[in-house]
Amino acid sequence: MHEFQIIQSYFTHLSRRADLGVGDDAALFRVSPNCQCVVTSDMLVAGRHFFPDVDARTLGHKALAVNVSDLAAMGAEPLGFTLSLALPSVDEAWLADFSGGLLALATSFNCDLMGGDTTRSGSGAGLGGLDGLVINITAFGQVPAGAAIRRDGARVGDDIWVSGTLGDAALALALLQRQRAGESLPEQDSTTLAQLRSRLEMPTARVELGLALRGVASSMLDVSDGLAGDVRHILRASNVSAEIDCDALPLSSPLALMTFEQPWQRWRLALTGGDDYELCFTAPLSMRARIADLVGELGVPLTRIGRVVPVDSLGAPRVMWQSEISSDSLAHMNDWQGYNHFS
Amino acid sequence: MHEFQIIQSYFTHLSRRADLGVGDDAALFRVSPNCQCVVTSDMLVAGRHFFPDVDARTLGHKALAVNVSDLAAMGAEPLGFTLSLALPSVDEAWLADFSGGLLALATSFNCDLMGGDTTRSGSGAGLGGLDGLVINITAFGQVPAGAAIRRDGARVGDDIWVSGTLGDAALALALLQRQRAGESLPEQDSTTLAQLRSRLEMPTARVELGLALRGVASSMLDVSDGLAGDVRHILRASNVSAEIDCDALPLSSPLALMTFEQPWQRWRLALTGGDDYELCFTAPLSMRARIADLVGELGVPLTRIGRVVPVDSLGAPRVMWQSEISSDSLAHMNDWQGYNHFS
Repeated sequence: MHEFQIIQSYFTHLSRRADLGVGDDAALFRVSPNCQCVVTSDMLVAGRHFFPDVDARTLGHKALAVNVSDLAAMGAEPLGFTLSLALPSVDEAWLADFSGGLLALATSFNCDLMGGDTTRSGSGAGLGGLDGLVINITAFGQVPAGAAIRRDGARVGDDIWVSGTLGDAALALALLQRQRAGESLPEQDSTTLAQLRSRLEMPTARVELGLALRGVASSMLDVSDGLAGDVRHILRASNVSAEIDCDALPLSSPLALMTFEQPWQRWRLALTGGDDYELCFTAPLSMRARIADLVGELGVPLTRIGRVVPVDSLGAPRVMWQSEISSDSLAHMNDWQGYNHFS
Repeated sequence: MHEFQIIQSYFTHLSRRADLGVGDDAALFRVSPNCQCVVTSDMLVAGRHFFPDVDARTLGHKALAVNVSDLAAMGAEPLGFTLSLALPSVDEAWLADFSGGLLALATSFNCDLMGGDTTRSGSGAGLGGLDGLVINITAFGQVPAGAAIRRDGARVGDDIWVSGTLGDAALALALLQRQRAGESLPEQDSTTLAQLRSRLEMPTARVELGLALRGVASSMLDVSDGLAGDVRHILRASNVSAEIDCDALPLSSPLALMTFEQPWQRWRLALTGGDDYELCFTAPLSMRARIADLVGELGVPLTRIGRVVPVDSLGAPRVMWQSEISSDSLAHMNDWQGYNHFS
């Protein structure tokens, strides 16, 4: 099958957003007057970011969702994306499912496939399955000039908020890894995996929430590598510190009910596991009522987990973890970082 | 080395084009009023698009050049790009050279690195050298609304033009492959390789020419997979056929002087080899004088190689190859296609 046939069969998409879509040297689209263009890019590698035998439809969903989540974290409206695929082989059933999951999500966000590249993966391929598969998506959006919610706007006294629940994808991944290692999961763990698996494989990009937080949030990012590491990006960019109340961390019922040997293991999962794709943001106290209203308007849980404080006399932004319920656990948390792709 | 350290050490670039560059969830930039945003994306895979031991500096150059060439082919002005890297390992000397070559070209085009992603490559890595390395660049530019030079504007009677010379990169690649297979090249071939190697490894993106051809060319693309296949993209998009004079194909001295067993082998190299990154365009006859002026103004050779004709009674766009010097060779050419990444 020729590259052009692959594109024509699986990745031709009626674009309402592009003036010129797939099929020329480049795509053309318009940014609304007085708007800035917003651009982000994420690369997913088989064996690193997904299991080589993952369901193709969920993979198509996730590859786009993680990029749209970055647009959401800027308060941007999605416009379109380019897709680059390095394929170990041409498997038409796989391509149909992958593009199905991808384009279904694209349609739901009115975020159009505008172009890209398709090639064979390198000599590392051929080890079986999707080994060697690499997916890169670059997504574009727009935001009224000056309205983007950046990482450097947190101010001392602001509340710190997070959407949804934390650690669900990490728990699903941990259970999936045990299952893949040949372990027969106890019934309760199987139920938990069934409940949380979609949080790992079909993450929700909080676009509507991101848009609603323009003029409300003072800084924002999406939590992709674990809140413990990611919140530090806001702190460093804004030159502030944070007090975070571990007792307030929003946990799903399956994660809250899970038994751990040590209480801090639950927090480690919630704070360092990654793949949450929830929005973490800061906002002045004056916005509390507005934020409470958003919970009802959008149907998205929003939880106040801490507050922004000045950097201490050493001048280094840091997180001070707090807990009344399990203060013994706090000693375990000081060096928690986000996921490091090179460790 | 942590992902953030890699980005900070090697890919932080003083951006004059971005309102917000590397370091947030997404980058922000502006498109000038009444302009369309132009976007293109290319993925390069070790072992497919470059030798795993290729010089890192030239690889950095080429990875960006092939994308900027697509912007040039639209008549667009480059603005910026995102870079995604899947690295088999962290080799700081390699990263310094790669980013050096990349950012030198970026600076020369005023095309700024605005963001991206860095990750480890998958389990195919570790086979040695750069095996597993994947580079994806998505480049953005702008063009006044309606001024982009698309593939679908060729009209019957237009001339067909090409910039520079064809087949040089393909000849360099053929010689390099012989050398890598252990062959000791004759002196003349070594000289030819030395002369043409930069055409393969450091291609020129014809940005200035692309801009100058706005309002002059009726259709355009960049020749990346060989003119024989690529020109058909214009023909199909415009629903026209072409007569191309093989005797007029612009060849460099090293390629013209190379000895081939059959005369058509030279044309095959020039027409199907790929990696030329020259611009192929159509223009009305009334533009001949303007195009002749451009040769002097820009110092870029522009050669008229054929003309646009109506599709025949079968209604299928096709190329009719012509030659007075070597008409026997034409029989070999009918099924010549561009490079197929999946054959």
